[in-house]
Amino acid sequence: MSSNTSSYIQFANAEDKQEFSKFPTKAGRRSLSRSISQSSTDSYSSAASYTDSSDDETSPRDKAQVNSHGSTNFCVKNIKQAEFGRREIEIAEQDMSALISLRKRAQGEKPLAGAKIVGCTHITAQTAVLIETLVALGAQCRWTACNIYSTQNEVAAALAETGVPVFAWKGESEDDFWWCIDRCVNSDGWQANMILDDGGDLTHWVYKKYPSVFKKVRGIVEESVTGVHRLYQLSKAGKLCVPAMNVNDSVTKQKFDNLYCCRESILDGLKRTTDIMFGGKQVVVCGYGEVGKGCCTALKALGAIVCITEIDPICALQACMDGFRVVKLSEVIRQMDVVITCTGNKNVVSREHLDRMKNGCIVCNMGHSNTEIDVASLRSPELTWERVRSQVDHIIWPDGKRVIVLAEGRLLNLSCSTVPTFVLSITATTQALALIELYNAPEGRYKQDVYLLPKKMDEYVASLHLPNFDAHLTELSDEQAKYMGLNKNGPFKPNYYRY
Amino acid sequence: MSSNTSSYIQFANAEDKQEFSKFPTKAGRRSLSRSISQSSTDSYSSAASYTDSSDDETSPRDKAQVNSHGSTNFCVKNIKQAEFGRREIEIAEQDMSALISLRKRAQGEKPLAGAKIVGCTHITAQTAVLIETLVALGAQCRWTACNIYSTQNEVAAALAETGVPVFAWKGESEDDFWWCIDRCVNSDGWQANMILDDGGDLTHWVYKKYPSVFKKVRGIVEESVTGVHRLYQLSKAGKLCVPAMNVNDSVTKQKFDNLYCCRESILDGLKRTTDIMFGGKQVVVCGYGEVGKGCCTALKALGAIVCITEIDPICALQACMDGFRVVKLSEVIRQMDVVITCTGNKNVVSREHLDRMKNGCIVCNMGHSNTEIDVASLRSPELTWERVRSQVDHIIWPDGKRVIVLAEGRLLNLSCSTVPTFVLSITATTQALALIELYNAPEGRYKQDVYLLPKKMDEYVASLHLPNFDAHLTELSDEQAKYMGLNKNGPFKPNYYRY
Amino acid sequence: MSSNTSSYIQFANAEDKQEFSKFPTKAGRRSLSRSISQSSTDSYSSAASYTDSSDDETSPRDKAQVNSHGSTNFCVKNIKQAEFGRREIEIAEQDMSALISLRKRAQGEKPLAGAKIVGCTHITAQTAVLIETLVALGAQCRWTACNIYSTQNEVAAALAETGVPVFAWKGESEDDFWWCIDRCVNSDGWQANMILDDGGDLTHWVYKKYPSVFKKVRGIVEESVTGVHRLYQLSKAGKLCVPAMNVNDSVTKQKFDNLYCCRESILDGLKRTTDIMFGGKQVVVCGYGEVGKGCCTALKALGAIVCITEIDPICALQACMDGFRVVKLSEVIRQMDVVITCTGNKNVVSREHLDRMKNGCIVCNMGHSNTEIDVASLRSPELTWERVRSQVDHIIWPDGKRVIVLAEGRLLNLSCSTVPTFVLSITATTQALALIELYNAPEGRYKQDVYLLPKKMDEYVASLHLPNFDAHLTELSDEQAKYMGLNKNGPFKPNYYRY
Amino acid sequence: MSSNTSSYIQFANAEDKQEFSKFPTKAGRRSLSRSISQSSTDSYSSAASYTDSSDDETSPRDKAQVNSHGSTNFCVKNIKQAEFGRREIEIAEQDMSALISLRKRAQGEKPLAGAKIVGCTHITAQTAVLIETLVALGAQCRWTACNIYSTQNEVAAALAETGVPVFAWKGESEDDFWWCIDRCVNSDGWQANMILDDGGDLTHWVYKKYPSVFKKVRGIVEESVTGVHRLYQLSKAGKLCVPAMNVNDSVTKQKFDNLYCCRESILDGLKRTTDIMFGGKQVVVCGYGEVGKGCCTALKALGAIVCITEIDPICALQACMDGFRVVKLSEVIRQMDVVITCTGNKNVVSREHLDRMKNGCIVCNMGHSNTEIDVASLRSPELTWERVRSQVDHIIWPDGKRVIVLAEGRLLNLSCSTVPTFVLSITATTQALALIELYNAPEGRYKQDVYLLPKKMDEYVASLHLPNFDAHLTELSDEQAKYMGLNKNGPFKPNYYRY
Repeated sequence: MSSNTSSYIQFANAEDKQEFSKFPTKAGRRSLSRSISQSSTDSYSSAASYTDSSDDETSPRDKAQVNSHGSTNFCVKNIKQAEFGRREIEIAEQDMSALISLRKRAQGEKPLAGAKIVGCTHITAQTAVLIETLVALGAQCRWTACNIYSTQNEVAAALAETGVPVFAWKGESEDDFWWCIDRCVNSDGWQANMILDDGGDLTHWVYKKYPSVFKKVRGIVEESVTGVHRLYQLSKAGKLCVPAMNVNDSVTKQKFDNLYCCRESILDGLKRTTDIMFGGKQVVVCGYGEVGKGCCTALKALGAIVCITEIDPICALQACMDGFRVVKLSEVIRQMDVVITCTGNKNVVSREHLDRMKNGCIVCNMGHSNTEIDVASLRSPELTWERVRSQVDHIIWPDGKRVIVLAEGRLLNLSCSTVPTFVLSITATTQALALIELYNAPEGRYKQDVYLLPKKMDEYVASLHLPNFDAHLTELSDEQAKYMGLNKNGPFKPNYYRY
Repeated sequence: MSSNTSSYIQFANAEDKQEFSKFPTKAGRRSLSRSISQSSTDSYSSAASYTDSSDDETSPRDKAQVNSHGSTNFCVKNIKQAEFGRREIEIAEQDMSALISLRKRAQGEKPLAGAKIVGCTHITAQTAVLIETLVALGAQCRWTACNIYSTQNEVAAALAETGVPVFAWKGESEDDFWWCIDRCVNSDGWQANMILDDGGDLTHWVYKKYPSVFKKVRGIVEESVTGVHRLYQLSKAGKLCVPAMNVNDSVTKQKFDNLYCCRESILDGLKRTTDIMFGGKQVVVCGYGEVGKGCCTALKALGAIVCITEIDPICALQACMDGFRVVKLSEVIRQMDVVITCTGNKNVVSREHLDRMKNGCIVCNMGHSNTEIDVASLRSPELTWERVRSQVDHIIWPDGKRVIVLAEGRLLNLSCSTVPTFVLSITATTQALALIELYNAPEGRYKQDVYLLPKKMDEYVASLHLPNFDAHLTELSDEQAKYMGLNKNGPFKPNYYRY
Repeated sequence: MSSNTSSYIQFANAEDKQEFSKFPTKAGRRSLSRSISQSSTDSYSSAASYTDSSDDETSPRDKAQVNSHGSTNFCVKNIKQAEFGRREIEIAEQDMSALISLRKRAQGEKPLAGAKIVGCTHITAQTAVLIETLVALGAQCRWTACNIYSTQNEVAAALAETGVPVFAWKGESEDDFWWCIDRCVNSDGWQANMILDDGGDLTHWVYKKYPSVFKKVRGIVEESVTGVHRLYQLSKAGKLCVPAMNVNDSVTKQKFDNLYCCRESILDGLKRTTDIMFGGKQVVVCGYGEVGKGCCTALKALGAIVCITEIDPICALQACMDGFRVVKLSEVIRQMDVVITCTGNKNVVSREHLDRMKNGCIVCNMGHSNTEIDVASLRSPELTWERVRSQVDHIIWPDGKRVIVLAEGRLLNLSCSTVPTFVLSITATTQALALIELYNAPEGRYKQDVYLLPKKMDEYVASLHLPNFDAHLTELSDEQAKYMGLNKNGPFKPNYYRY
Repeated sequence: MSSNTSSYIQFANAEDKQEFSKFPTKAGRRSLSRSISQSSTDSYSSAASYTDSSDDETSPRDKAQVNSHGSTNFCVKNIKQAEFGRREIEIAEQDMSALISLRKRAQGEKPLAGAKIVGCTHITAQTAVLIETLVALGAQCRWTACNIYSTQNEVAAALAETGVPVFAWKGESEDDFWWCIDRCVNSDGWQANMILDDGGDLTHWVYKKYPSVFKKVRGIVEESVTGVHRLYQLSKAGKLCVPAMNVNDSVTKQKFDNLYCCRESILDGLKRTTDIMFGGKQVVVCGYGEVGKGCCTALKALGAIVCITEIDPICALQACMDGFRVVKLSEVIRQMDVVITCTGNKNVVSREHLDRMKNGCIVCNMGHSNTEIDVASLRSPELTWERVRSQVDHIIWPDGKRVIVLAEGRLLNLSCSTVPTFVLSITATTQALALIELYNAPEGRYKQDVYLLPKKMDEYVASLHLPNFDAHLTELSDEQAKYMGLNKNGPFKPNYYRY
């Protein structure tokens, strides 16, 4: 763990430390060897606050604030922004009818009555709809942010105003970050029995600092690749004493976060940053997984001429059948107008590739973290960096050639485009159902391990979103269900089904 | 087992019989309760013989034939057709370069030296390329047909001419069918140690009639849904004493047989039978699995207006995101120009639906067997059937309304379109690799169970087909492989990866 | 005019002869220097007779036939086939509701009462629906075939049976061809006052042989490129004494015959001949006009990787924007799996290109006549031709390389695929409206010249076909019509509008 | 002409006035009855100045500014912004290689030597590239803005710095607008002999105020629908004493400004304003002309379910064949998620439609002006307007229903998305070529009328842009050119060709 870690973190011994900070084999690829999770310093451009008054420099930790009900049990930027935040939440509710409908369906029985949930997520209008749904279903919640930049201060204020203890603001220091987490967990006379986490930092904190709380938790719901990985490591090490639900790998979330969302955000991200015309552009997409498939589909549809690179022959064969030439990057790099990485790997675009690009070539990353493009190699004296817009740099070679690097090689879709509320609705609904399932599961259904959401719940999440499209499901007749060997209410597919 | 079963079949007792003929739950949907597998009487239109002389009515069983090397160890329609068949095989070889390349790569070491393979598949030029590849790799083969109609007589003759004992002809009776299988297995001084089956009839025969042979078999490779199901039943009953490979569910096969192949064959099948113009046609596709996805993609691309029906909310949500309205069949049936079933279910299109279709509506089945459309309900006195072309019937209502039923509700893609050689090449390569794997696997790698092809082999099948597309794979650097936690040679994805 | 011309053709002098047989500049590209029009020996594969009894070798000209009403005023293959032909016509009527609806709308007033129409077209079920529509609208018709192969004998019989004097059969000699035309025109006590032609042969005949009839004709409706060209030549030479309507260039016909029809027929033609899988195939389409656009759209949609060649920079720029690489044929020829010509030019694919193609490359022509591929250059001693299917030849190079030539370089869509009835309905409706317009036009509206169909009629043809798609047009309000400066009933676009 | 017209405008008599201000028939649809052209108050969002210092409130007309060469012959916001503007111009040059290449090709001969051009266009970096190209080709230029909001002040400064007399700034008053035009035209010792106009205001001014200058002008090049219409009116009235070139209707411009540009800007405009997810959205597009086709193509490709409305049966039939349902707006309005107008008409979306929309429905205009949606009808007391973002209003019904109106019904693509430089390059190149053609045309080639750009020049514009796509044109051989009856250098198509 790096040296800039807050003093709050105290490891018992080296072995424990390793659990979270070093991962052999696949783990390495997630860049977890930092004090806080990778994702906690990424920023959603559209998740920024609307009314930030940059003049107020006082730290929220130093302010005394009280909401209109007299409570001081929160720490936000400015409680007076609550009204603005409330309107944002109301607008978000319009596109999150699945959660609203879940509130209605489950409200009578209050399936979360007695649940005490600590949550650590991005704090946005959409998250607020989730939190208020959990409350409507009977839970008590305390919340903090999983990212130091992404909190919408007005939304945090609106939540605090209604009585949810929220500890988060935009622009926290790392010390603030852990302080907020601690305040969230450590509350007199209140002990969490459920954890909802995004990135694993909250889980880590409870595990390390409040082992007695941790042991009594009924379940953990984790959203991120990183956090899920940490849980599997804990489990492998025999130290996970709580059932955990990996909602990152549920079908609906995967398809929406990757295929469908990237299909839209690649266009949005490129357009907002560069005003590029897609028609006729030569594009190479590195990686033909779900993200790459989404990017390729959209760009081809808009008239770009797309080729791909792949290491996996099966994905490569799919690309062929879908009408994309499969090439090595070095073969085509000179002709490309746009280079997009979607591999999850590192140094896919190397300095050598960058040197051979033509004037005006755009390079961006849709895949993972900031490792795919070797941006560091461009920080050399012979190259000039010129910032032409927010998130857009021209790197200028001595001969005048310019290469356009977006978001300094960080994720384009997080930095330069927005995530539709509908996609966030799917994630939030999945989280809510996972909490309900873990909280209500009969003893023994879940052991001290990491679980995927049961397929039937995945199907339920999907079904809650169908009304948005005015989609009408067909029901099996008894005879048909019998013929298919299926229950009429699902699940409808075997676990290994590929969709 | 039905009463028209050949006398060759002798069951020890009722229990044994049940193993193969009755399956509870999901089994039921495969219509297995016949003496020979469903697929053994389907017919590939393009797999028909080219030079059938209908004047020769003598049964091959009653003919004395000898090939140019003096062998009589075969039974085909007419050994003199060998030359024509050889040319067909040569043409097929052009599109099956993966097998040819496999011959070259593996030939030095003869990985099938000592293998004695009995095979039961469709006998076509493409199968001949497979068989001759197995021989080139060191195997001895004996072969018979898995379908009484699909044998290309000339190809069978060409194989017999080169010395492969083949027992098959187009238009076998059911008695012939079992006779051929028996001749294939029961050969003096030669005992099979490998089985390659398509439908499970050969496996069944060996299991029942030659239990001592069965026990010494090193492995079974099974290609069909039906056959795989039978194997799982055997395994569940603890009676599978041989490792078996389920090649039906390998990724490449699934994607090609379903998504990619149906994307093309739906257009081909409709066009050849009805000369329909696709542009502007209102089409409902029942079922949005891989087959439905393939159909929808192609029809939408050609200008049809497509909606779908689904029972599974996840597939329904995918359909929404892919731009298809999700409806109940009864809501839209009156407006539709074409109705296509891809569900694997029964009576998806009922008589009630058929009654409400508009004049000229086309109904066909791309899904499964002949159960999806309730064709039987149309065999009623008030309706007139008029055959207007091969595989095309007009059903005429008393008021003059005509509904056009294709292939009498059987599979359109098998009955009315052809399967590209390239797709068959993928299947055949998978079969060959599965045989090599099972034959050479060290003791203990495979137990007496049913296995999926190891992912690395799936990837190898894919890689052998990439040269067809002039596709160039990228190789991981050592550093990248380490970062990803992958072996540079694969496998590249976890088993649950959805592609 | 070539030497194999029937003795029926007698030209007054060399100059006259030249008018029709030799065209400088653009004319040359239409291969008109034959005794009968190019199109008259092309054959629609699907327009072939269904019940041809090859045993009846007697020429229809030598047979005495009488229909059930006692008439002998026709000459067809076999009048007894009338019933079968009637059913074909009834089936065609189902997809030609525009004509049926035209019958109904115009029937009361009989707009063609008094019209005496001689027609020369392909004789198919669809043409029969047109002819019977003309009759229903009041016309008397006599008909002959514009192509020696394309007559559906049963349909001709059905027409003859109902009393339409038809002179046509499948497999006419060239002498028969002109004899039929003459019998059609030259009838005692009956003189044509309207001509409906496809190819210009009938017009030519009347012009040459019956100049007094020609002068009294009220109008000519011509369907083909070739025939239209001949008319423009006559007009330019000041010898066209009759108004003529060029229906070839009407918008709806152009779009359907070219863009929309080729979008479907390229897939159909390739599939029926070669069973090719489209996914991943590298295809070059020569020419990006309407035909090329149709081919490219379809192939790209099915997963082919398509590039194009162009001489016109505007079309080339369109191709770029539509996502197709623009290349020279020689640059890419070695990599291509399929080469398709759509240029209207000659020797676009030369022997040099053919020599450089890879093994298995498919070459076909969707453009014009049989000139685009230099097939003649392949008739050289070092190359072997092997016919592998109807319309499919393998040309084998000395090193074993095979190139697959379809339809010997003639039009793939005419030779190897069918034309949807719907497309023929648009053509037939346009022809009917053109006849009505010319026949009823007030004196002076049309002079002795060649006209395009008035846009309003083009719009009417379109509107008659909208019910097939259940399409609902919006009507302008008075206020909107005024704002747009349009008549509420159209025309809605200026003449130069590009659609 | 409205009362707020600047006193600079003096009409000789009522008749003259009418020429420009009232147009019968089609004219009406262009809303020309304002003192300055409609387009002159529209604003390109992305054309806004980057460095506007809102603190400087002094009118440029009151400032004394001098460039570094000592010239005061200009009037811009702030000459000190020149350096920033220069960089913007350099960046634009990268995507306008056609103009750069035109500079090179024509520079030796200086085809515009002696030309004195007054120009009135949007003043942006792209226009600057055009102006500097004209200068490089020998012309002297004076320039002003055609829109009071769209000037990029820094770019104007950069032009002024290099010596081009520019009179324009962002945020002109209407009085400023005409003052600038006058300063542009009225220069001691300098008399314009060419006019480049966008909207017709400059032309109008010269015509009215400087008739003697007007008569000596060699040619006018007009870019806009409005300006072209005015010219046709002048011509019809016999008062156009100068040849004029209508570049608005050139093929390349039309296709790029409409089909290709809207294909991209509809997505961009919707995304930037609403962050909508396109997948599965129900969209109705009113009008299936080029703009509608572009919108439909893009939305369908991204997974929206699109239907269209049309008044023209031909366009409606195209929509059917392209796979879009053709409906009346009132039939579907209740189900729609997005309503887009592309008709050029007025009140296509009426208050009645708006009343029936569902909650959250988005309404926007891609067609023409601000007339298509009856926004005025929403300014009624029972409805609440809530501005949620720039260009985005929620209109709230008494029952809480919100309808989202974008850009208050003005053009979405101008207000909320950017126009790619490449599209502007096509326009600019067309303008440059039109100026060269008119200036150099031999006496008599052009009369006092309005002309379309000769097709060969259209083709030349296209060819200059092909290198951007690395597209390689094929050249006709002599033999092929002869066969086609074409000149090897074009033009390649007849004038009526539809592309």
